[in-house]
Amino acid sequence: MDGSFLIGSRALTTDETFRAIDPSTDEALDTDFAVSTTDHVAEACKLAADAFDSYRETDPEDRATFLETIAAEIEGTDGLVERAVAESGLPEARLTGERGRTCGQLRLFAKLLRQGRWANVVVDNAMPDRQPMPRADLRQRRIAIGPVAVFGASNFPLAFSVAGGDTASALAAGCPVVCKGHPAHPGTSVLVGRAIQSAVKKCGLHEGVFSLVQGTSNDLGAALVKDPRIKAVGFTGSRGGGLALVEIAQKRPEPIPVYAEMSSINPVILFPEALKARGKDLGKAYVGSLTLGSGQFCTNPGVVVALDGPDLDAFADTAAKALEEAQPQVMLTGGIHKNYDQGVQKLSGQSDVKTLARGAEGTGCNRGRAALFETTGEAFIRNPELAHEVFGAASIIVRCTDFDQVAQVLEGMEGQLTATLQIDEGDHETAKKLVPILERKAGRILANAWPTGVEVSYAMVHGGPFPATSDPRTTSVGTAAIERFLRPVCYQDLPDALLPKAVKHDNPLHLPRIVDGESE
Amino acid sequence: MDGSFLIGSRALTTDETFRAIDPSTDEALDTDFAVSTTDHVAEACKLAADAFDSYRETDPEDRATFLETIAAEIEGTDGLVERAVAESGLPEARLTGERGRTCGQLRLFAKLLRQGRWANVVVDNAMPDRQPMPRADLRQRRIAIGPVAVFGASNFPLAFSVAGGDTASALAAGCPVVCKGHPAHPGTSVLVGRAIQSAVKKCGLHEGVFSLVQGTSNDLGAALVKDPRIKAVGFTGSRGGGLALVEIAQKRPEPIPVYAEMSSINPVILFPEALKARGKDLGKAYVGSLTLGSGQFCTNPGVVVALDGPDLDAFADTAAKALEEAQPQVMLTGGIHKNYDQGVQKLSGQSDVKTLARGAEGTGCNRGRAALFETTGEAFIRNPELAHEVFGAASIIVRCTDFDQVAQVLEGMEGQLTATLQIDEGDHETAKKLVPILERKAGRILANAWPTGVEVSYAMVHGGPFPATSDPRTTSVGTAAIERFLRPVCYQDLPDALLPKAVKHDNPLHLPRIVDGESE
Repeated sequence: MDGSFLIGSRALTTDETFRAIDPSTDEALDTDFAVSTTDHVAEACKLAADAFDSYRETDPEDRATFLETIAAEIEGTDGLVERAVAESGLPEARLTGERGRTCGQLRLFAKLLRQGRWANVVVDNAMPDRQPMPRADLRQRRIAIGPVAVFGASNFPLAFSVAGGDTASALAAGCPVVCKGHPAHPGTSVLVGRAIQSAVKKCGLHEGVFSLVQGTSNDLGAALVKDPRIKAVGFTGSRGGGLALVEIAQKRPEPIPVYAEMSSINPVILFPEALKARGKDLGKAYVGSLTLGSGQFCTNPGVVVALDGPDLDAFADTAAKALEEAQPQVMLTGGIHKNYDQGVQKLSGQSDVKTLARGAEGTGCNRGRAALFETTGEAFIRNPELAHEVFGAASIIVRCTDFDQVAQVLEGMEGQLTATLQIDEGDHETAKKLVPILERKAGRILANAWPTGVEVSYAMVHGGPFPATSDPRTTSVGTAAIERFLRPVCYQDLPDALLPKAVKHDNPLHLPRIVDGESE
Repeated sequence: MDGSFLIGSRALTTDETFRAIDPSTDEALDTDFAVSTTDHVAEACKLAADAFDSYRETDPEDRATFLETIAAEIEGTDGLVERAVAESGLPEARLTGERGRTCGQLRLFAKLLRQGRWANVVVDNAMPDRQPMPRADLRQRRIAIGPVAVFGASNFPLAFSVAGGDTASALAAGCPVVCKGHPAHPGTSVLVGRAIQSAVKKCGLHEGVFSLVQGTSNDLGAALVKDPRIKAVGFTGSRGGGLALVEIAQKRPEPIPVYAEMSSINPVILFPEALKARGKDLGKAYVGSLTLGSGQFCTNPGVVVALDGPDLDAFADTAAKALEEAQPQVMLTGGIHKNYDQGVQKLSGQSDVKTLARGAEGTGCNRGRAALFETTGEAFIRNPELAHEVFGAASIIVRCTDFDQVAQVLEGMEGQLTATLQIDEGDHETAKKLVPILERKAGRILANAWPTGVEVSYAMVHGGPFPATSDPRTTSVGTAAIERFLRPVCYQDLPDALLPKAVKHDNPLHLPRIVDGESE
């Protein structure tokens, strides 16, 4: 196993090292991973800045090929899934799927680049005879924002880590990436980093397009965000971690955007007709979604809201029974497991909270025991602690007196990644009144599905108002994620010779354009 | 003259009042304007929140009609231009033009709403048979972000004040607006506010769609930005003012975006062939752009960069002579005049800065005397003070040794709204090397024009990296300004009955859509 980190085309080592821990045994895995210093961070950022002007002006087709090459290199990397299993405790099938998702994501951005809408070319032709003043020739396009810092996420060692959604969208936009690998899976990170490094070389790009720094201290990430050459940050993780990066970014002489995807409890609302018709099925499906991957999804259904009554009793009973049978699964790290246990304990100790069920006890390290709670709408409204995310397979059922109280519960919630409706046709009129609230609170509204499972596509929004993310205007999954790393520039009366290809008069890149207000 | 402020459909007064000052005489104008309290701010924000769900879901056609009605109401407001002249010291012709720009801006957003691209509807059709997992029906649209706080700007009492670009784009997006009028032109503000209030009524909209609070203290604006119901802020003004609002917004329990357009010195680069061919004409045109409106434009050309030599001497001589003949004009407020004088004094006292010329001395209050300085590229690179904006008709010529030094001067600059090239064909090769730097630094790049004069159109970008604005991803002029007040929401498998019109299956609003990745 390769223990180096990657600065441009080089693989470097240092005397200070760390090891990955297998969370299923709490034992250190083989390989000493070299810790990058803040000097290495600066070196990576300098290379990224050096690469920026040439990389951002590569033809979209060339960047598309580059992304596809990364995907192929990842698919050709031996031992990647095995290493990710050892470092994350996630099952092999899940990580095989995640590798497919990672490569599919890169290929979707390649397709997007070829379609060209991302460049948002807008042309207002000159009107030299306009009265009282002529109009100049004005051409707008979006260009890459600059070198981007990407923080690997623990819960998606492939799809939201070194070559994950943030990296794919930043590279697609034309931004060099300096990635800080998550310290929980350094081996996975370096394997994927090597794949990107190899693709950079094969595609003849400037070596500064990608670097990977590694280490366990927060100082490394702070140095990365502080570096003046970094112009945006992508992060998925805890609320505390995200807010710390936001603060660092805002205190820079030049503040920069941080796209932090942080905290969400993903309310699920059970409507009366649906609950009556299929409460037991819903109860089982709920526990399936809740316990999937030990509940370590940003979109885990952390709260269920419904009207109190026998139909909800049936739902809760079925859910409790299913949950009691749920086998404990290894969590991603010892720290996450500890936080989960503390969160569960804290929730169970709140007044007006009843523990409905706990998952089966298991043997072995860092096994997360699922937890199901219930409370009243009144208590939930009164006590904001009940709405705090417990990362893992914990969820709370909120029993409401009527739909006014349901509305109040939802209005009181912070921003969310998702909100889910379980509805039958007879519920539509009631649901209609809640949809506007949910639109204000969440990035994605689902009906008769479960929020875990996020499609990588054109229409997806994996985002939402604070604290779901630090920027409600964006998504971190799906093609619209590219917009986070672009900014508009307007060219006024520039001679064609000086115009970038994207806005030249004869449109050599064949980009779709809005001309004088109309789609071409 | 009406001295009230406007909370929804009401016009209110209080015992505490203030008066507008005619900057040309430093005398108070008639009319006591009532000062709004923080309770009024809260009331306005509550009404805005009450109005939000209904207003944001008005049909685009209805919002277009509303914007057009505002324009007509403004055009029908007697005495508006006269009052703006008295309160701002700007000439009548300029304010008549600005009224036209304000109304044209509202009508352009009406047109944009009817075109529908702003809603960014993206549909990924369900793929129930997809392997290994079916795909849900996914529909994305952009919805209004929430009630918006708009701060009137002093230097555009109409086009960037109560019904200016920020208000027009926020209302177009579907956001209710709570405006804080600029204390320098309260009468102008209330006249325009009344026009909007009347349009709200005529169009049968919720009264909370618009409120106008007035006052002279910063506390009022702070209370507005702190109000939890406000979800975004539009501001044009000083760097200090903008950064103060950004800080307040970031310290909220729910941080919100602030679009502050703040500080820019708008470099103009004179290339050798152009300078040789038409140095004298450029010198005259430069002073024309510099002294226009007493230099009180965000896009005022505050720095000229060129190679030292006889051609630059000729340019500088002509500019100096033209500037000496420039008659002093009334500045917007006593405070702005004082800051200008202090800025000029500070710049003139810097080592390696030579005062080339001052404008004619004039009589009367608050007359801004133009000022022209020069320095060396070396000094400009060494001393960041030389690159600070002096708001008003002050500019500095930077004499460089070669184009490497020009590049260094530009690289050292902070973010800018504009960058201008004065070039002839023989300069193209040299210019090509600088364009990438300028793209990184500025929102708009012009050739053979002057940056004052900002077209309101589809392709315009009036924005740029910090500190030109607090958010380089946006523009505050032109149709793309609407994007600042929208956020994406995705609907997954929602029954058609529950979908908002914008994303219903039969597309009743006839919005342009991207379906399965292709434009429909």
